[in-house]
Amino acid sequence: MEGLEVEIFKEVKFDERGLIPAIVQDAEGGQVLMLAYMNRDSLQETFRTGFTHFFSRSRNKIWKKGEESGHVQRVREVLYDCDGDTILVKVEQEVAACHTGHRSCFYRCYSPCSDQIEEVEPRIFDPDEIYRKGS
Amino acid sequence: MEGLEVEIFKEVKFDERGLIPAIVQDAEGGQVLMLAYMNRDSLQETFRTGFTHFFSRSRNKIWKKGEESGHVQRVREVLYDCDGDTILVKVEQEVAACHTGHRSCFYRCYSPCSDQIEEVEPRIFDPDEIYRKGS
Repeated sequence: MEGLEVEIFKEVKFDERGLIPAIVQDAEGGQVLMLAYMNRDSLQETFRTGFTHFFSRSRNKIWKKGEESGHVQRVREVLYDCDGDTILVKVEQEVAACHTGHRSCFYRCYSPCSDQIEEVEPRIFDPDEIYRKGS
Repeated sequence: MEGLEVEIFKEVKFDERGLIPAIVQDAEGGQVLMLAYMNRDSLQETFRTGFTHFFSRSRNKIWKKGEESGHVQRVREVLYDCDGDTILVKVEQEVAACHTGHRSCFYRCYSPCSDQIEEVEPRIFDPDEIYRKGS
């Protein structure tokens, strides 16, 4: 991964903020776990380390998924779409992807018939225990 | 779906352009098919009709997926993420999601070891036949 001129960077487009959305999918069950944004450096770091890295717009820096919680994502495959403006990363997810304690960030389903929101999967860890350890 | 004050609109956030990214996933096999953007009207139209509708930034208008090709997406479930800034739509996909003829827009995989791009699924229709019919 010397330099940035590897093939993937000729194929994908970063937007005016220098970002590209990255969908993260469980490589085993196929569950969609989360969506986050990458810049060039976080994509390169993802390839270099084999673990997903994203760019935080609020903190204006690269972060490794799971750096605090230990819920890291080991990269299995990186795909990109026809327009080159979205990335799909298939991963082995440690424990859970969501900071709320759910396996997937997409744990709520909306039913237009009843106009109701339903939680469709359980919490599998307690965020208070995981995220307050270090503070 | 009278008005916009149904529950889902209290939960999701549109960005400064009035858009939210929507991941489309095959309800059966779990394959991620595409990512496109919705505005409020296209999300409402998606619920009203039961078929995915998106907002085209280049054409500045709402479009129904498959309006030209017939490759529509019947909505099974609509989920949204912990931050309310991404939607996940599970669909029954007619034929294929991608205008290139592939089932999924994510048909190319990048291998960082070999620095090579590989097509990981075949074309299942000929775009020239599908998209030139009407012109």
